[in-house]
Amino acid sequence: MSTPIPATALQLRSVVTEDQTVQLSLEEVAVPEPGPDEVLVRVEAAPINPSDLGLLLAGADATAAVSTGPADRPVVTAPVPDTVMRAMRARVGVSMPVGNEGAGTVVAAGSSGAAQALLGKSVAAAGGSMYAQYRSVNVGLCLPLPDGMPAAKGASSFVNPMTVLGMVETMRLEHHTALVHTAAASNLGQMLNRHCQSEQVPLVNIVRRPEQEELLRSAGADYVCNSAAPTFMDDLTAAVGRTSATLAFDATGGGRLASQILTCMEAAASASAGAYSRYGSAVHKQVYIYGSLDRGPTELTRNYGMAWGVGGWLLTPFLQRIGLEGVARLRDRVAAELTTTFASSYTDEVTLAGALQPDVIQAYARQATGSKYLILPNG
Amino acid sequence: MSTPIPATALQLRSVVTEDQTVQLSLEEVAVPEPGPDEVLVRVEAAPINPSDLGLLLAGADATAAVSTGPADRPVVTAPVPDTVMRAMRARVGVSMPVGNEGAGTVVAAGSSGAAQALLGKSVAAAGGSMYAQYRSVNVGLCLPLPDGMPAAKGASSFVNPMTVLGMVETMRLEHHTALVHTAAASNLGQMLNRHCQSEQVPLVNIVRRPEQEELLRSAGADYVCNSAAPTFMDDLTAAVGRTSATLAFDATGGGRLASQILTCMEAAASASAGAYSRYGSAVHKQVYIYGSLDRGPTELTRNYGMAWGVGGWLLTPFLQRIGLEGVARLRDRVAAELTTTFASSYTDEVTLAGALQPDVIQAYARQATGSKYLILPNG
Repeated sequence: MSTPIPATALQLRSVVTEDQTVQLSLEEVAVPEPGPDEVLVRVEAAPINPSDLGLLLAGADATAAVSTGPADRPVVTAPVPDTVMRAMRARVGVSMPVGNEGAGTVVAAGSSGAAQALLGKSVAAAGGSMYAQYRSVNVGLCLPLPDGMPAAKGASSFVNPMTVLGMVETMRLEHHTALVHTAAASNLGQMLNRHCQSEQVPLVNIVRRPEQEELLRSAGADYVCNSAAPTFMDDLTAAVGRTSATLAFDATGGGRLASQILTCMEAAASASAGAYSRYGSAVHKQVYIYGSLDRGPTELTRNYGMAWGVGGWLLTPFLQRIGLEGVARLRDRVAAELTTTFASSYTDEVTLAGALQPDVIQAYARQATGSKYLILPNG
Repeated sequence: MSTPIPATALQLRSVVTEDQTVQLSLEEVAVPEPGPDEVLVRVEAAPINPSDLGLLLAGADATAAVSTGPADRPVVTAPVPDTVMRAMRARVGVSMPVGNEGAGTVVAAGSSGAAQALLGKSVAAAGGSMYAQYRSVNVGLCLPLPDGMPAAKGASSFVNPMTVLGMVETMRLEHHTALVHTAAASNLGQMLNRHCQSEQVPLVNIVRRPEQEELLRSAGADYVCNSAAPTFMDDLTAAVGRTSATLAFDATGGGRLASQILTCMEAAASASAGAYSRYGSAVHKQVYIYGSLDRGPTELTRNYGMAWGVGGWLLTPFLQRIGLEGVARLRDRVAAELTTTFASSYTDEVTLAGALQPDVIQAYARQATGSKYLILPNG
């Protein structure tokens, strides 16, 4: 009951044009022949992660997206602001495939034993270009899914799980013992909450709404602080004091949240230090910004002494830092807990064409916590 | 012709009071008996460094300083703003001596051989409480000055020279090969310019005024960018591109300068990288904030990918990082070049009482580049 492999199939593309617009479309491209160490995956599910949006939307104003073309082959354009355009120079005129990860069925395999062994199997894969009906992937980038697991369950096996594992590994590598996490009710945040519980790592969850507090508390979270509450700074200082958290991962980026976290860490450190120290506490306080839900500037008030750092954190350099063996260890961990710790949930499923409807684009561009789209390229 | 040692002598003190003011005064304190490994230094010169101002002024509004008491024993009060007061809690009511470094004559010595060997010598010393007529110091904190060198020439032997050496050492420890420095026409900036030339480390100097550009160029600086010039971003990008500088030390702290430096580093890295990278260039770009000439918030626009960091940098933790041997090596270097690379200059000399005149306080609180005070406690 195998489906015949077509000669061509659809692939989602994003291109930035000279006139400062991004254009999204579905291109008919040749289905590739897998090389010796590759498998051809019929992609059945691919999530839209925040980390896909930069490449997909190129910083364009999604609220001004306009669609033309037939319903099954839409062409969407949206304006790219001046401020963003400078960073886009190198991709002007280059039509780029999108989609960091996904899962599907191996429908053809290269000559190597490792490739042949995957024929007919469901696999998750990372490596880009997954918003497509077919994708040829190196065997090394595939994670075989347990027998009987549908592709949709394995579509988010890399980005969020490896990021969650990466946060806790980074904590250990840099000699911290507890974590603070923002936008903590996200799919990723819920995973981190589960993983920290199983690792007995104290975690301070920062959310923005009461129902998100409730969600995390009902999932067993010990420390949940609502940044919209008038008592937020006191609540966070108390939670940071009890957990001794000196490392935070921040998904918001813009605004004062990163700075507020450092302020509370410093207040907690000073409270336990006793005597006055003219340059602040000696304990190093770090915030890594790994997302940009708020694209405005980050504002640092610097009222936390001199032992602090803020910086970008990205999965790929972290994986390079821990090396191939480290990556393999983390992937085994993900595979073993794919339906428990590292389970994902989606609020909507769309086809490739559905992912290019302006209202859908606007919905995922908002990156509302709790809202997550899954593309079914062959659905 | 040795002066008799008095039983008591003056020491400058700073105390933050419950009613949110800082009070500066000269206290009559007992001249200490040196312990076995200590020497008693008659302090002849001590600089007012930016790093002394936090302890001295406690973030008070110097423009509102009011002096009472006799001319030779003034008592100055100035209001501490609400925003700063929170960080001052631990020092409320604690009268604190001030002055990170200075130089003078050893007029008494403890029983150890090392202490006795310094008797009668001119020494520079670090360790705090140097805004005083007499200070007992551990021998390990003393740097004997070359024969015949007046104390004033050795008064700034630690903070600025070690900071300059620390910047270049940090650059090497963290695998960078060139530096960017702001407020580059300062005493410290001029030292860094000389040291980088002798070490053949490419240095990009950022200043704010044409005469500062001229000062540094006439001192042999290859790269000087004026942040007030309309072409600043292009100039800095070009200089960073030519030097491949990926590390900056920023004395200003507040505002957008740190962010602008990262933006220019990213532009230079992208220009040399060729193809578009969705998360920005892979090269890590770092700004260390070591001063706070602008006490306003630091604003980061984050248009420089994910491989970036901003953080505080302080001399003391750096010295701990390199250990005793490393510190000894740097101190030998300073001693050998005290009248060349590491020479300081002062715009004004004042007595202890003179340092507490409101107009003088306001002058050094402004931290104008090129203006530097030297206190002569026995002058």
